[in-house]
Amino acid sequence: MSDKQKKPQKLKARLPRGFVDRSASDIRAVNEMTAKIRAVYEHYGFDPVETPLFEYTDALGKFLPDSDRPNEGVFSLQDDDEQWMSLRYDLTAPLARHVAENFNEIQLPYRTYRAGYVFRNEKPGPGRFRQFMQFDADTVGAPGVQADAEMCMMMADTLEALGIKRGDYVIRVNNRKVLDGVLEAIGLGGDDKAAQRLNVLRAIDKLDKFGPEGVALLLGPGRKDESGDFTKGAGLDADQIEKVLFFVGIKDYAESAVRLAELVAGTSKGSEGVEELNLIGSLVTSAGYHSDRIKIDPSVVRGLEYYTGPVYEAELLFDVTNEKGEKVVFGSVGGGGRYDGLVSRFMGQPVPATGFSIGVSRLMTALKNLGKLGTEEVIEPVLVTVMDGDVEAMGRYQRFTQQLRAAGIRAEMFQGNWKKFGNQLKYADRRGCPIAIIQGGDERAEGVVQLKDLIEGKRLSGEIEDNESWREARVAQETVPEADLVAKVREILAAQAEDRKRAPGNV
Amino acid sequence: MSDKQKKPQKLKARLPRGFVDRSASDIRAVNEMTAKIRAVYEHYGFDPVETPLFEYTDALGKFLPDSDRPNEGVFSLQDDDEQWMSLRYDLTAPLARHVAENFNEIQLPYRTYRAGYVFRNEKPGPGRFRQFMQFDADTVGAPGVQADAEMCMMMADTLEALGIKRGDYVIRVNNRKVLDGVLEAIGLGGDDKAAQRLNVLRAIDKLDKFGPEGVALLLGPGRKDESGDFTKGAGLDADQIEKVLFFVGIKDYAESAVRLAELVAGTSKGSEGVEELNLIGSLVTSAGYHSDRIKIDPSVVRGLEYYTGPVYEAELLFDVTNEKGEKVVFGSVGGGGRYDGLVSRFMGQPVPATGFSIGVSRLMTALKNLGKLGTEEVIEPVLVTVMDGDVEAMGRYQRFTQQLRAAGIRAEMFQGNWKKFGNQLKYADRRGCPIAIIQGGDERAEGVVQLKDLIEGKRLSGEIEDNESWREARVAQETVPEADLVAKVREILAAQAEDRKRAPGNV
Repeated sequence: MSDKQKKPQKLKARLPRGFVDRSASDIRAVNEMTAKIRAVYEHYGFDPVETPLFEYTDALGKFLPDSDRPNEGVFSLQDDDEQWMSLRYDLTAPLARHVAENFNEIQLPYRTYRAGYVFRNEKPGPGRFRQFMQFDADTVGAPGVQADAEMCMMMADTLEALGIKRGDYVIRVNNRKVLDGVLEAIGLGGDDKAAQRLNVLRAIDKLDKFGPEGVALLLGPGRKDESGDFTKGAGLDADQIEKVLFFVGIKDYAESAVRLAELVAGTSKGSEGVEELNLIGSLVTSAGYHSDRIKIDPSVVRGLEYYTGPVYEAELLFDVTNEKGEKVVFGSVGGGGRYDGLVSRFMGQPVPATGFSIGVSRLMTALKNLGKLGTEEVIEPVLVTVMDGDVEAMGRYQRFTQQLRAAGIRAEMFQGNWKKFGNQLKYADRRGCPIAIIQGGDERAEGVVQLKDLIEGKRLSGEIEDNESWREARVAQETVPEADLVAKVREILAAQAEDRKRAPGNV
Repeated sequence: MSDKQKKPQKLKARLPRGFVDRSASDIRAVNEMTAKIRAVYEHYGFDPVETPLFEYTDALGKFLPDSDRPNEGVFSLQDDDEQWMSLRYDLTAPLARHVAENFNEIQLPYRTYRAGYVFRNEKPGPGRFRQFMQFDADTVGAPGVQADAEMCMMMADTLEALGIKRGDYVIRVNNRKVLDGVLEAIGLGGDDKAAQRLNVLRAIDKLDKFGPEGVALLLGPGRKDESGDFTKGAGLDADQIEKVLFFVGIKDYAESAVRLAELVAGTSKGSEGVEELNLIGSLVTSAGYHSDRIKIDPSVVRGLEYYTGPVYEAELLFDVTNEKGEKVVFGSVGGGGRYDGLVSRFMGQPVPATGFSIGVSRLMTALKNLGKLGTEEVIEPVLVTVMDGDVEAMGRYQRFTQQLRAAGIRAEMFQGNWKKFGNQLKYADRRGCPIAIIQGGDERAEGVVQLKDLIEGKRLSGEIEDNESWREARVAQETVPEADLVAKVREILAAQAEDRKRAPGNV
């Protein structure tokens, strides 16, 4: 229990790679953002539900994008009873388990939302972490595409609630059945072609990244990247590739609808998919959501294997500068689709469901770029400085601090080594404290306190750096009776707020 | 990609033991509670910071209560590079790592708070989970006990902000140095007695559970519980046990202060500890926190080994009925202390720190018992029912729903199988929807909608159960032009709110 035992050797303080600490401003920004998202979802009739971070590995399934082997990309460990548990890699698989486990108690259709951390046991990279937050909304037990239409409208409303202007985003909608129809039409139907279909899907999903030429290579013989790495292609012939590229290249759905319908005619689900797409289009238009907000776009694929019908994606359209200095469209901040098979893996009956996920930190980055977050002012605490260390003096400083807090004013008493007053000065400066309260022996005897307006003082005397000259300068400083402390602090804070309002560039 | 592939076999939907899903009402209650806690901490000048769920195992150390072997009680796994990572078991060890890792950027004293999940790889039991939430506040770089005094006041303010009345709680304070002094005085000083001291500590920590007689056994020869299991004792003799029991049995600190000072006189830190205790007492009293709120109580030990000075605990004093039907004091909802050695494990220099942790779900249980949570009303959504499935009708229902939401009214369109109208009725009933909006073919032709006041309807006609008689009864039902939908819904919701206000037992 002695101090010595605590330091057997010096440890290195570091985090495992791919994990990061979150700063105060990020935490506040995420809280502000998720509160706004939550408000929209609640308005849509959704209720929160949360699952723990662990699930049995078999309950999660192997639905990770871009992974073929089971459990690849997942953090797993064996429980005492030898069963394998994994940290969830998304919020959809655990929701499916939750619904199946509580099927008799849950009233369907079941609208829920949840924000939480998910984990990927992958190689981390720039902006690619092994722990990150998703914010999901799902409706389980909703067979009709009106539920998918609603999801699209909810995504649009969410982005607008966060301050993203109409025209700066679009919700793109597609349907897996149409895509399946196209694949069937080019001879890739049937269970035995599942692996090849998945390769085609992944190739299409790279359209943003590699363009039609790159995707054509991935659909055909394969593609070599700049580093010389070769990605095996899906092995399609020229005619097959042309049809896939026609489909994913459709820019104006209305214009291409006839050719698309012809292409999928006679396939098992293609026409159904086209009908569903048309129905979603009608529903959202009726509700006043036109193609400037929700747009049918066959290039949307979504990387996940488990989607069975409509898929949708929220894309931000404004430009940002990437790490190479190029202007690029910000791109996707979330998406989802219909997954009619996920819950029924546990059940003897079909349980249709649809939902989407928002990438919280990516959306936060977008909002910060737009200046839409962190605008809520955080006023740093008023600092009660410590001039004397005797019990009586300490008790007074403590009391001043509590009086300010009780009056609703953010305040703190200096807790470091008070004997060097310069430390307190530096601390107040770096922390951005608006006011310092000072009471030395003389003031104590008179029952008064000094208040230093640090914002005013900083402005008037940027050149004053050391403790002594600061004390002598006494800029923007007032001495008031102890009883007036709270009122005077309020007055100075109000004056500072007024200053900030008048000089918006000065915040 | 076909549905068939999704059901290779029926999985069992279940959670690993010791993990639970969180319901909407629990999530809302925790959000409400943590928002109030956060507001207090912010007022005290604390800022949020968060660490990820994983840390390197060696960075966590082995500071779990009641475990002797390293990593016992922790979820660990090996990373690709063979290094061991663990899920954090508390929020203190990761904070220590965070401060050490960013020591040059952090301005000390550093006041921070954070809420987050922690994990214990232990046998779960009733109310004992393997994942649970803690809410911590810490000040790092604060050497003086004025920082500990502040923590005690912050705990008291937090409990009052949550609605717990003065007198229904107390913050108890002790000091490890005093305890160490007592142990040294009875011959248990020195590094070679560390293990025996830890056993004494753990015995004392059981005072609440086993009483002085039980603790005397644990301090002496050992104790056999009702099931016959024997716990080895610390092996003290009668005189040693008497002194320890005197110390932890002190009820009135002032009365016992003289004997206590005598007992620890001449020990290396005992007198320092008594002085610190006295100083904390003076400081909190000066700030207006008397012994009805913050009380010096030498029976407080805290199970953790790493505390080096003041320790403090928040206890709720009101009675609750336990699972055996007995009335018991609710007890501890959080606590902490000074841990001057934790950060310096990573550093070449001492870094004093103090902080405490609140058990979120335990405190939530307490607040629910007191009726202090979940009082914020959640109004369930207005249900727009579906009477016809054609595109035009669906579009209208969708539009009504969006109009309500745009007006700030929680609303949803029925998303289940609409063809059985009874399903919609049952759904509205179980969900607690306040109003149903209905538009069949006739109403559509006339451009009107029906509004059913379901709360009124339920009250007037509890006996109406089936769809048909419900439709015929038409209690509390009105037909208005489509254009008046929003206004009429507002009117009915306002009337329902008024009803609830007048009949508080009827909520």
